[in-house]
Amino acid sequence: MSPVTKKPKTVDAALEEKCINAVRMLSAEMVQKANSGHPGAPMGCAPMAVSLFTRTMNYSPGNPKWFNRDRFVLSNGHACALLYSMLHLTGYERPTMDDLKKFRQLDSVTAGHPENHLLEAVEVATGPLGQGISQAVGMAVAQSHLAATFNKPGFDVSSNFTYVICGDGCLQEGVSSEASSLAGHLKLGKLIVLYDDNKITIDGSTDLSFTEDVAKRYEAYGWQVITITSGDSSDLSGIVSAIEKAKACTDKPTLIKVATTIGFGSKKQGSHETHGSPLGWEDIKAARTSFGFEPEGYFTVPDDVLATFRSQVEIGKELESEWDKLMASYAEKYPAESKELTRRIKGELPSDWMDSIPAWSEADKADASRNTSGLVLNAIASKLPEIMGGSADLTPSNKTLLTMSGDFQAATPEGRYLRFGVREHGMSAICNGMAAYGGFIPYCATFLNFVGYALGAVRLSALSEFQVLYVMTHDSIGLGEDGPTHQPIGILAALRAMPNFYVFRPADGNEVAGSYKAAVSMRKSPSLFALSRQNLPNLALSTSDKVLLGAYEVTLADSTPVVTIVATGSEVYLAVDAAKLLKAAGIDTSVVSMPCMELFEKQSVDYKKSIFRKDVLVVSVEAMATFGWSRHSHFQIGIDTFGKSAPYLELYDHFGLTPEKISEKIKTVHASYKGKSLTWLADAPQL
Amino acid sequence: MSPVTKKPKTVDAALEEKCINAVRMLSAEMVQKANSGHPGAPMGCAPMAVSLFTRTMNYSPGNPKWFNRDRFVLSNGHACALLYSMLHLTGYERPTMDDLKKFRQLDSVTAGHPENHLLEAVEVATGPLGQGISQAVGMAVAQSHLAATFNKPGFDVSSNFTYVICGDGCLQEGVSSEASSLAGHLKLGKLIVLYDDNKITIDGSTDLSFTEDVAKRYEAYGWQVITITSGDSSDLSGIVSAIEKAKACTDKPTLIKVATTIGFGSKKQGSHETHGSPLGWEDIKAARTSFGFEPEGYFTVPDDVLATFRSQVEIGKELESEWDKLMASYAEKYPAESKELTRRIKGELPSDWMDSIPAWSEADKADASRNTSGLVLNAIASKLPEIMGGSADLTPSNKTLLTMSGDFQAATPEGRYLRFGVREHGMSAICNGMAAYGGFIPYCATFLNFVGYALGAVRLSALSEFQVLYVMTHDSIGLGEDGPTHQPIGILAALRAMPNFYVFRPADGNEVAGSYKAAVSMRKSPSLFALSRQNLPNLALSTSDKVLLGAYEVTLADSTPVVTIVATGSEVYLAVDAAKLLKAAGIDTSVVSMPCMELFEKQSVDYKKSIFRKDVLVVSVEAMATFGWSRHSHFQIGIDTFGKSAPYLELYDHFGLTPEKISEKIKTVHASYKGKSLTWLADAPQL
Repeated sequence: MSPVTKKPKTVDAALEEKCINAVRMLSAEMVQKANSGHPGAPMGCAPMAVSLFTRTMNYSPGNPKWFNRDRFVLSNGHACALLYSMLHLTGYERPTMDDLKKFRQLDSVTAGHPENHLLEAVEVATGPLGQGISQAVGMAVAQSHLAATFNKPGFDVSSNFTYVICGDGCLQEGVSSEASSLAGHLKLGKLIVLYDDNKITIDGSTDLSFTEDVAKRYEAYGWQVITITSGDSSDLSGIVSAIEKAKACTDKPTLIKVATTIGFGSKKQGSHETHGSPLGWEDIKAARTSFGFEPEGYFTVPDDVLATFRSQVEIGKELESEWDKLMASYAEKYPAESKELTRRIKGELPSDWMDSIPAWSEADKADASRNTSGLVLNAIASKLPEIMGGSADLTPSNKTLLTMSGDFQAATPEGRYLRFGVREHGMSAICNGMAAYGGFIPYCATFLNFVGYALGAVRLSALSEFQVLYVMTHDSIGLGEDGPTHQPIGILAALRAMPNFYVFRPADGNEVAGSYKAAVSMRKSPSLFALSRQNLPNLALSTSDKVLLGAYEVTLADSTPVVTIVATGSEVYLAVDAAKLLKAAGIDTSVVSMPCMELFEKQSVDYKKSIFRKDVLVVSVEAMATFGWSRHSHFQIGIDTFGKSAPYLELYDHFGLTPEKISEKIKTVHASYKGKSLTWLADAPQL
Repeated sequence: MSPVTKKPKTVDAALEEKCINAVRMLSAEMVQKANSGHPGAPMGCAPMAVSLFTRTMNYSPGNPKWFNRDRFVLSNGHACALLYSMLHLTGYERPTMDDLKKFRQLDSVTAGHPENHLLEAVEVATGPLGQGISQAVGMAVAQSHLAATFNKPGFDVSSNFTYVICGDGCLQEGVSSEASSLAGHLKLGKLIVLYDDNKITIDGSTDLSFTEDVAKRYEAYGWQVITITSGDSSDLSGIVSAIEKAKACTDKPTLIKVATTIGFGSKKQGSHETHGSPLGWEDIKAARTSFGFEPEGYFTVPDDVLATFRSQVEIGKELESEWDKLMASYAEKYPAESKELTRRIKGELPSDWMDSIPAWSEADKADASRNTSGLVLNAIASKLPEIMGGSADLTPSNKTLLTMSGDFQAATPEGRYLRFGVREHGMSAICNGMAAYGGFIPYCATFLNFVGYALGAVRLSALSEFQVLYVMTHDSIGLGEDGPTHQPIGILAALRAMPNFYVFRPADGNEVAGSYKAAVSMRKSPSLFALSRQNLPNLALSTSDKVLLGAYEVTLADSTPVVTIVATGSEVYLAVDAAKLLKAAGIDTSVVSMPCMELFEKQSVDYKKSIFRKDVLVVSVEAMATFGWSRHSHFQIGIDTFGKSAPYLELYDHFGLTPEKISEKIKTVHASYKGKSLTWLADAPQL
């Protein structure tokens, strides 16, 4: 059986022109009604969008999540009026015409930039430039791997293409350079990008800042490049045949550079004034008139136009039905593979996925949490083939190699280990794309400090509800000699302040295990593991299950504590030793390990009060910026300067983070607060 | 008078080979003694470094900061043993041989990656890959602008080149793609990059992830590209003549792609094993032997080698002396320009630089802080020609245009306004390079949320003590319809947690003025202005001077307050109105505006206690993540989810940030804390 493809349609040139112009006007009208938004790009890109949605892509408006659909990414997300128009016209349940009229209004699904978590038919959230095309690389990686894993002769159960429309802005961003270079290296033939080359940016002409030869650059990346000079034309044959040529090229991604006019149809067409502001009703009326539409028939779509677009509903059903048949035969011939693929598509985890995760006892030798992470990751990945990922060229340092699988490369797409190169931002965006594709739990790795290079994409993991696992090693001054350029100080604050993002900083092997268990279980949230380069002893009272509570006691007070130390990761064992010194000095002390602040915040007030007791002085210890720790402690011990280059034990001493120095500081703090009032942090009302 | 250039030297081939190998060994020995570091790149790059330091560059070891020196940037900063070797051998005061032996040790100037603030001869901190080459673009921009501003016929008072050595890693990073594309656009002919093409990354061969055609890509950017296949050769004529060709090409930057062998001389040469670990003394001994050095003569340099390198001390003095003469004649003929250039070089501000800054009164109409920022920036820039910068293609939104100057473009290098394109990360790195060059206070702009794209470079501003002004507008949900992809929630936490970085969030015109005054005054710290898109009324009690205190009262209590609201930026006037409602309800309330947390932290305990009084409940209000506010408040009102797309007034209402909703919440909080103990945050001991 051959791969499912859509039948070519006969084309009525006049009707097609009408369709294109209807899209232009509907988009411009949405922006106008909202009195806010971007009409220029939708009007310029309409011919490309119509080419993709009516002549090229396989998709089923009745089932936005049909698994083998071609993926479409609008990388220039500000052009979302175009996307919403196409989705409505082709017959998706949402957005309705009413939704289009509520563009950019509170709680509408038609947000100011596309948001996948609001509207099912949106594949990925875009708007921050460069992210869409980079996520599309991840989607193409996912498809390639899935096809290599599940397709059988005559059974191309995975065969979809990934299409992108992007603008100048996306191609100026470094993240797209990184992802595009890797896409070329990986020979992702099913990735096809249409570049809206309109020569206009917000500041004015691209002549102001962007005069490079984009086509030549993409050829240098190993892409096929096709140039179309008549992108405004209503004759779509040029675009359509370029796409056909792109599809035929199986060993290279393709960039189709399409010359267009921003705001085509407006009196201001070709000007950056059409970019980010409504055109004005007068201009819209004039454009409608010139296109032959009723001048004031805003938000109406001619019947023949609507019928043309809506025919996709039936076509989509046929496509789905063909694929369902294919899957049914596949299930007969390859029952195990079929079952596994179905599980992956549904996103269900097998019940035994935690069974191979190791446990540690106090007697086990001290080990770096990057090493125990490597063991736990491999234990889980041996049960979960959907775990696929790699490192930004720090594999030997991050300990992220998968022992059960080889590299994902052009010649070995069945491999699960990704060699991202030194491309942190692209790496994170690619993982977002893999998560968006479905059937994967992607992971990626670098030194913790360099997550700062990737923050633009990391934030989209959280906003888009994509489960990406960030394996970040060398998580403090504990990395030693590489020095302050490599030592994170403030970066965890950025991540802890981010909604829907979970930072784990495990103290030992069991907490590493618990962190992975928690992170893999949260299917709509990204997580980050901050892991040590240096060895950490295994604690007597650590357990993987208690990581789910976010924080728990690892040293109990002898009676009622007068001091509680709260610490994370590599500082927990130091806190445990400091507590011994404090107890010996008559200051009864408990120690709380807090591997995950965010999970602790979710616990009951009673649980919080059992850990941090009334009138007990709480002191936090973490070898990085103290910013944010006041939420859980009365006094903070940490590092509020940049680090230094030296062997790590000398650094811990230099920065006052030995058990002796910690306990001495706490003695002073305890004396200083004697007789003064302390807020019981658990007293805060829940509003 | 023609520009100063160094005389060509006659070359003794055998001695030159000895020089190169001496550099290789000294570098490898530093790493070995430290038992940590990267020997491979220094050994591979030694021929390039010797070419630059003995045959090409104009510099004066006796005066590392001689203004017209050629700049050298080691972009692959992990190869710093090479840089330290070259600096020592050519006769800089530091590093001494003893410094080299203390490589990577506590408080040594020879840190694990080059740090400009530790060692005067280091131009910029490198190590985070891609930053060096991108900063070099900024240095070349600075030189080009300075030459256009001050050079006169016969007086090329600024004529230096900027040289870079970089590796594969630097060229994979998106930040270098962004900066390199702009460098080509700007035709920066005095920028010359030597690319150490050793085909090796940490993971192994570049075949794993980096197979693009780098030369073609750089040609696409508009660079001249020269390829050298014999980069290991001790015959430096190939490299030297390529550099000459690069210097002769005045309208394009040049990339010289040099094929080398990593770890050249080691038994493991050509392998990634030489990248990041010491070779072992046995291997070093063998290499020394094969190079004809005394096998165990570690850290000794043959006299003829040292004499060859050290001759640069005298050459440097001559170069300086020639330039001093040129400057003396220039001072006679162009006294005003000479005085101004000298002031710029010294980094002194004229005494009247604040004189044109506007002030506002309560009666002035409400205005967005992005607008008042534009006015203040222009007022200061009219007095300070060293202020040069621009926006990442958001000029009309960021309000950063300079009214007194045109664009800096290839044809108009005298212009001070930079069109960075949609390249936030490259923009920040370029500003770092301009600051490093000297004589500039660079600024740059985008939406606050997209500083997340640039965080890798922003962090280097802080670590490197570079005064860069970050003008970041659209700083909250107040941007409205663009929605959550554009609305910052957690990003300020990252910046407030960063050492040596100042975040200003001004509440009105006067606070904007005060923020600029403070930021321009701090010559060794970067600052960021978080500015509103929406209009903000001018407060009765705001003053620009009090911004220097970090926080001050803008609403006084009627007697002793029972509640203090602390707010920033666009939420201060809401807090002022909420306080009125609370007072009316019998809860006497003061309001503190805190435009800069970091400056407040520096105030005396007495001042802090005068603002936040004993036993007074403090509630913070900021329209973003509450993370970090516990340091200054007992209860936090903010937004700990992502934002939404809607008109901004609806969003403020939706998120509970109207005066009515704020005051109602505070009533509940106040009631909840009645009779409970409150920590006086000013009680914290200073340890």
